[in-house]
Amino acid sequence: MSSGKILVAQGGGPTAVINQSLVGVVLEARRFRNVTRIYGALHGVRGIVDENFVDLTQETSHNLELVAATPSSALGSTRDKPDLKYCEDIFKVLRAHEIEHFFYIGGNDSSDTVRIVSEQARAAGYPLRAIHIPKTIDNDLVGNDHTPGFPSAARFVAQAFAGANLDNASLPGVYVGVVMGRHAGFLTAASALGKKFPEDGPHLIYLPERVFSVERFLADVKDTYARYGRCVVAVSEGIHDASGEPIATLLAKEVERDAHGNVQLSGTGALADLLCDEIKDKLGIKRVRGDTFGYLQRSFIGCVSDVDQREAREVGEKAVQFAMWGDRDGSVAIKRTGFYSVDYELLPLEAVAGKTRTMEDEFIDEKGTGVTDAFRMYLRPLLGSGMPDAYRLRPAPVPKILKR
Amino acid sequence: MSSGKILVAQGGGPTAVINQSLVGVVLEARRFRNVTRIYGALHGVRGIVDENFVDLTQETSHNLELVAATPSSALGSTRDKPDLKYCEDIFKVLRAHEIEHFFYIGGNDSSDTVRIVSEQARAAGYPLRAIHIPKTIDNDLVGNDHTPGFPSAARFVAQAFAGANLDNASLPGVYVGVVMGRHAGFLTAASALGKKFPEDGPHLIYLPERVFSVERFLADVKDTYARYGRCVVAVSEGIHDASGEPIATLLAKEVERDAHGNVQLSGTGALADLLCDEIKDKLGIKRVRGDTFGYLQRSFIGCVSDVDQREAREVGEKAVQFAMWGDRDGSVAIKRTGFYSVDYELLPLEAVAGKTRTMEDEFIDEKGTGVTDAFRMYLRPLLGSGMPDAYRLRPAPVPKILKR
Repeated sequence: MSSGKILVAQGGGPTAVINQSLVGVVLEARRFRNVTRIYGALHGVRGIVDENFVDLTQETSHNLELVAATPSSALGSTRDKPDLKYCEDIFKVLRAHEIEHFFYIGGNDSSDTVRIVSEQARAAGYPLRAIHIPKTIDNDLVGNDHTPGFPSAARFVAQAFAGANLDNASLPGVYVGVVMGRHAGFLTAASALGKKFPEDGPHLIYLPERVFSVERFLADVKDTYARYGRCVVAVSEGIHDASGEPIATLLAKEVERDAHGNVQLSGTGALADLLCDEIKDKLGIKRVRGDTFGYLQRSFIGCVSDVDQREAREVGEKAVQFAMWGDRDGSVAIKRTGFYSVDYELLPLEAVAGKTRTMEDEFIDEKGTGVTDAFRMYLRPLLGSGMPDAYRLRPAPVPKILKR
Repeated sequence: MSSGKILVAQGGGPTAVINQSLVGVVLEARRFRNVTRIYGALHGVRGIVDENFVDLTQETSHNLELVAATPSSALGSTRDKPDLKYCEDIFKVLRAHEIEHFFYIGGNDSSDTVRIVSEQARAAGYPLRAIHIPKTIDNDLVGNDHTPGFPSAARFVAQAFAGANLDNASLPGVYVGVVMGRHAGFLTAASALGKKFPEDGPHLIYLPERVFSVERFLADVKDTYARYGRCVVAVSEGIHDASGEPIATLLAKEVERDAHGNVQLSGTGALADLLCDEIKDKLGIKRVRGDTFGYLQRSFIGCVSDVDQREAREVGEKAVQFAMWGDRDGSVAIKRTGFYSVDYELLPLEAVAGKTRTMEDEFIDEKGTGVTDAFRMYLRPLLGSGMPDAYRLRPAPVPKILKR
C-alpha cells in the first residue's frame, strides 16, 4: 500500500454530478490512515502548474456532502489540453509537493493527460499512482457502459422534450430543439425518452452518427406535419453532410450566396435558426420555433438523476480503493451487471485515452431518425427515480349544433 | 343562482400550471347540482367558433388530477385575437349550445375577449355568466399581486441562472441568458433569485422597463469582468433603445452596415448571439457564451412551484364560486394578504382587459441593472418549497513550493 499526499482535480465541462466524484475521493481517502493531506487543484491542470491548491483535509464532511449535491465543478475547471511539456510541468509540481496519488476527474482529454503524466512518473522512477475518473455529458468514453454526468443531462433533455411536445400539441407548429454532443448522439437521442403517447414528439431525431441531408430533413418534416399537424424535432449540434462539413456552415453559406451578404455564425443559436428558416422558406409552414438548449442542459440546477449521483460518488470512491489496494494506474469504468445494477473496473489508461465512443448501430433505428427499444432499455434506468410524467384528457366529443 | 351548461377554454401561451385552473373549474363545478354538463373547447376561442367541444363531465376525477399536474394546455390553445365579429360568432355558439357559464383561462387578450362576449350577451338579454381566469408567465396582468404560471416560470429562470452561475464560476468568461417577457421584466428579474453568495451572478440584469444602451451595457460588462474575472448577464428579450426600437434590430442593422450584407433575424437566438458578438468584438473577451431560454422556460416539465400549483387550482375553483354565488361577470385576481398568504377577488373585466402591468419602480435598483430587496421579498415565497440550493468549498490555500 502506498502512502502520502493526495491531489484531486476536475477538468473539462462541468456536469450535475462531478462534485459527487470529488467528494467520493475526499471522503474515501479520509478512511486511509496513511493519507496525510488531500489537496484540490483549482481549475484543473491549470491549477496544478500554477500550484493553486486548497487543502480539502480541512473541509467538514457536512459541507462536502452539500457540495456533492451541487452541480458544476466546485474546484473550477479548465479547457487547457496539456501537451508533453505541460505534462512535464504537472509532474514537476506533483514531485515538489510529494504527491503520491493523483486523481483527475474528466473526459477524453483528461484521461490522456493522466496517461502522459503516469508514463513520465514511471520513466522518472517516481512512485506516483495516477487514476482517471470518468465524467462527460456526451457519454463518449470507450470502455464504459455510460459515463457519470450523462444520465442527468439526458434527464434534462428528456424532460425538456416532454414539455416541448406538450407545448407544441397545445399550439401546433414545428419545433426544433438543438442538443449538445458534437460527435456522439447519445444526449440528442435521450429526447426520445420524453415521448409517451404514440402521437407524441420528438417525431424526428437527427444524430451526428448519420449523414444529414437538408432535402431529406425537409421531406421528413413535411411528412410528419402532414400526418400530425405538427412536428417536434431533436437535432444534434454536430450534424454534418457526407463530407463531414457542419450543417450550420453549409446553410450559412447558402444564405450568404443568396444575399451576397455576411452571416454571423459565432453565436450558439445559429443552427436552430437556420433550420427554422429553411422550414419556413421551403415548406411554407408559419409557426416554426427553434431552441438551442445550450448551457442549460449541463448546468441547470434541480434536474438530476439519483442513479447518476450514486454512480458518480462511487467512481470517486472506487478510484481511491483502486489506488490504495491496486498495483497499477488506470481509468475507472462503469460496467452494467443487471437491469439495473453496475460494478466498476479499472481499465488501462491507453484503452480510454484520446478515444471517442459514438452511438452503437443497434441504438439507432433503420430510417436514422429515431432510436430503438434497445436504446430505451439502455437509457431508462439511468434517468433515475421520480421522472415527471405527462397525462392528457381522453376524448369525449360533443355533437356540433350549428355546423353539424 | 343560475343553472345549465358550463364551457371552459384555455388561451395564449401554455404554462406549467394552467391545467390546475382547468381542473379547478371542472371539479368545483361538479359540486353544483344545477350543472348538467361541463364542456371544454379545444384550442381556445378557435374551438368555440368551430364547435370543437369535449365533454369533461365524462372524465374521471382521478385522470383530471393527473392532467392538473401536467404542464401546458390540456385542451389546446390558440393565438387568435378575436375582434368584434369573432366575438359575435363565439356568442352565437354559446347560445346554440345553451351555455350559461363561460370560463376563459388566459392573459390580457383573453380577458378582453371575455369582456366583449359579456357585453354582447348583456345587450342580447342572454343570461350568460362570463369569467376570466388569469394566467401568464409574464406576470403582466394589472390588479393581480401576481398571475398563475409566473411563479413556476420564475422558478425555472432562477434555477437556470443558479446553474449558469456555477458553470461560469467553473469556466470563467461572460455568459448572457436571454429571458422571455417583451414588455414586463418580472421573469428576467427572477434571475436574481438564483444568486446566493455576494460574488455570484447574475451580476447584471437588463429589463424592458429601462432604456438599454449598448455602450453602457459594454461598460457594465467590462467593469464586472475586471472585478470578478467573469460576468453573468440576464437580458429580457424586450430590451429597446430610447425610441423603443428593439436592440436585436438595432445591432443587426449595425452588422449589416458593416458588412453590406444581410442578417437573418427570424430565429430566436439572434439577440443573445448579437450581444455576445458585441462583447467579443468591443471588449476582446474570448470566452463569451449566450443562451436563449426560449420555450424551455414555459414548458419544461418537472420544474414547478407548489405555491403556483395551489393558487392556479384555487383561481379555477373561485371562478366557479364567483359565477354561482355572485351576480356579475369579472376577472379573478390574486390579492396578497400575508407573508405568505393570498385571497381572491373578482375584478370588473374593464379593470383588467387589454391593460399591461410592468415592473414597479420599487422593484428595480437605482442603477437599473439589478433588483431591490423589495422584489426579493415579493418573489421568494412564490417560488415554493424545495428550491435547490448551491454550496461551495471554503478556502484553505496550500503554500506554493516552486512558485513561492
